[in-house]
Amino acid sequence: MPNVLTYGTFDLFHIGHLRLLERAKALAGADGKLIVAVSTDEFNWNAKQKKCAIPYEERAAIVAALRCVDKVIPEECWEQKTQDVEKYNVDIFVMGNDWEGKFDFLQSQCEVVYHPRTEGISSTKSNTDLHG
Amino acid sequence: MPNVLTYGTFDLFHIGHLRLLERAKALAGADGKLIVAVSTDEFNWNAKQKKCAIPYEERAAIVAALRCVDKVIPEECWEQKTQDVEKYNVDIFVMGNDWEGKFDFLQSQCEVVYHPRTEGISSTKSNTDLHG
Repeated sequence: MPNVLTYGTFDLFHIGHLRLLERAKALAGADGKLIVAVSTDEFNWNAKQKKCAIPYEERAAIVAALRCVDKVIPEECWEQKTQDVEKYNVDIFVMGNDWEGKFDFLQSQCEVVYHPRTEGISSTKSNTDLHG
Repeated sequence: MPNVLTYGTFDLFHIGHLRLLERAKALAGADGKLIVAVSTDEFNWNAKQKKCAIPYEERAAIVAALRCVDKVIPEECWEQKTQDVEKYNVDIFVMGNDWEGKFDFLQSQCEVVYHPRTEGISSTKSNTDLHG
């Protein structure tokens, strides 16, 4: 019953987000839990100068409403990952492979997996379409 | 254990869609089922000259992934509602109140409820923002 943890913004929720989350839940199995850290608006702005189209509360509510998601927590800083892995007894940390290699430092605490993203779909693209 | 049925396009999935579906599921209760008819791309185009930003398969997959939704069926024509109510043993037919009064003809078969929509949120608006 492994616990699985992933991070994301999930702005303008789309099929690529759902596929990533369902694949992450598949790693957890029927009895394991999928914990999803959704980045707050402040973190997106302060750390990445990224303005979300949809506010945190709505992005988090949509992710939390999915059958494949067991728990949603806020992502508020880059440094929280080590703590989150410990706090939630995480066995597998999974991210899209656009982050390949970036979280290998967590391998001393848990398994680190990078999943392929759905081709041709990204929020950054939708957001650019939306805001010019 | 009432069965509840609703219809929608659910293009560019947002918090207003989720709130409508959760409110519909609340009518069904823990043991009742929420059946959601998602309009196909062909129906949107042929009946309403409306082009969806997101294809049917993806819109339907996102709705089906929600914990509050028990079954998704395609909406392919205006006339199917009478049949659907019978086929799925529907006790309550629920729509947003932008359709107020339009489905009162189903009252001979089941209860008809119109729910308020979340103010200031609509796919038509997002779609206009997205496509200019």
